[in-house]
Amino acid sequence: MHTALECIPCFVRQALEAARFVTDDPGIHERLVREVLRATAEMDLSQSPPMIACRIHRSLRSMTGVTDPYNRAKEAFNRMALAMYEELEMATASSADPLDMAVRLAIAGNVIDLGVNGTLTEAQARASLDNALDEPLCGDTADFRRAVESARNILYLADNAGEIVFDRLLVERLGSHKVTLAVRGGPILNDATIDDAKAAGLCDIVKVIDNGSDAPGTVLGECGDEFRRAFAGADLIISKGQGNFETLSDELANIFFLFKVKCPTIANHVGLPLGSHVLLPSEAGRMRDERLLKERV
Amino acid sequence: MHTALECIPCFVRQALEAARFVTDDPGIHERLVREVLRATAEMDLSQSPPMIACRIHRSLRSMTGVTDPYNRAKEAFNRMALAMYEELEMATASSADPLDMAVRLAIAGNVIDLGVNGTLTEAQARASLDNALDEPLCGDTADFRRAVESARNILYLADNAGEIVFDRLLVERLGSHKVTLAVRGGPILNDATIDDAKAAGLCDIVKVIDNGSDAPGTVLGECGDEFRRAFAGADLIISKGQGNFETLSDELANIFFLFKVKCPTIANHVGLPLGSHVLLPSEAGRMRDERLLKERV
Repeated sequence: MHTALECIPCFVRQALEAARFVTDDPGIHERLVREVLRATAEMDLSQSPPMIACRIHRSLRSMTGVTDPYNRAKEAFNRMALAMYEELEMATASSADPLDMAVRLAIAGNVIDLGVNGTLTEAQARASLDNALDEPLCGDTADFRRAVESARNILYLADNAGEIVFDRLLVERLGSHKVTLAVRGGPILNDATIDDAKAAGLCDIVKVIDNGSDAPGTVLGECGDEFRRAFAGADLIISKGQGNFETLSDELANIFFLFKVKCPTIANHVGLPLGSHVLLPSEAGRMRDERLLKERV
Repeated sequence: MHTALECIPCFVRQALEAARFVTDDPGIHERLVREVLRATAEMDLSQSPPMIACRIHRSLRSMTGVTDPYNRAKEAFNRMALAMYEELEMATASSADPLDMAVRLAIAGNVIDLGVNGTLTEAQARASLDNALDEPLCGDTADFRRAVESARNILYLADNAGEIVFDRLLVERLGSHKVTLAVRGGPILNDATIDDAKAAGLCDIVKVIDNGSDAPGTVLGECGDEFRRAFAGADLIISKGQGNFETLSDELANIFFLFKVKCPTIANHVGLPLGSHVLLPSEAGRMRDERLLKERV
């Protein structure tokens, strides 16, 4: 997905919020904002938004020497989500359709995104999560179920800390023997890294790899070899969050995108209202599905 | 009021919205956004936000040759407000406290601000206006009433088209013989100019002047002589909207600011929640009031 002009105010806001996370020094806040303005004035809009966000956060890290500004926020959201986990796991296990419920909860967890809203509090996230199951799901869990059942090798792309605890509910239902979970290769915003996968207990139940990149999405050209092999070898990819959607929506792979629509540009791109909870097969996935259906007929 | 770093994403958004108002040419949208990014990267933050917004809109006008992009929107909001006028005027006249009700309605009208929300629809504005009288007023109408009663020469600074029809309800209660109403000197966003004062019928009941400037606020150094004389000669200034507040909040004049808090930076500055309806005396006005009270004792 290319970067829209509408993304630019968001980059500036995100840079400022990140700078405030790192330091109280208003001089650094101003320097970073001015640097972001200069850089975005000349930027190549054919890049995806996460690629540009990645550059901004690299600047901030080099300006301040702080490598993981969102560290405490990530730990706090992991704790919040873990406190909810046991109850949600029991409710999911005893529900009439555990896979469907786990999909809904995994998408609900995508609200924990400090890239879109850097001032999101635990109370706000908690309130949103408490109402998550009332949200209608835009997408077909029957298609998703078929894709999961026929897959032998699933690559699950995590998105954010905190959210990754909700991902565990879904990972448990996919058949953990066939799942590899991938996290970011380095700290970026509140995106999940290997530490968050460990905190969520995911390292104990599935193979976890990092993608070798510090982009808040999956920019394949920036990812490491191990991840690229896993991506190429997966027969189903489950992609969480807007950042992964923005970077992978044009890929010719069998992907289901699970995310909450959190900005008007994405809403416009997918043709669904802001706030929608989305389970969306990739173009290639849809084509493959139609071919399989035809073969059956 | 200085420009906060938080204002910058808003400038970029506003520039893009304004560019889309003017033309469907994506090349011009991109050129304007890049120009705004370059200019804001080097800008002097000690200027007020309306001064910077003014520069951005001058760029857009020179780039496109379109002098009044918001013209149709202004006409539409004037029509909407005029359709509500008669009913509101009757309700105000027959209310227990017409001045208080007129103040509340004038502040409610401040929701019609395409600078803060360029996609505001008539239906959204109408819904907000319908609920306006339920909004609590942050401020003391008793102080305001005293100031109006003791004033001999009131300068009323209008803000937006549409809103100016609601201002008429208040102007009618101030004693029209002692009121001069000022509008912007040229088109900027959906701010009211002389055409809107005419459409609202205000030119028939009070003296109307323009301020000689195309800033979306009152930048005294940019205003014409006639306006500056009126400003200096007024013993009470009634200032509508955030833009006038941002540009006049540090002036040593007897001002009442009437506005709806529409952005977090202003909310923070005045210490009131976003959405508040505010009736706020200037520092100089408060000092003068205290002196008068002491003289009475």
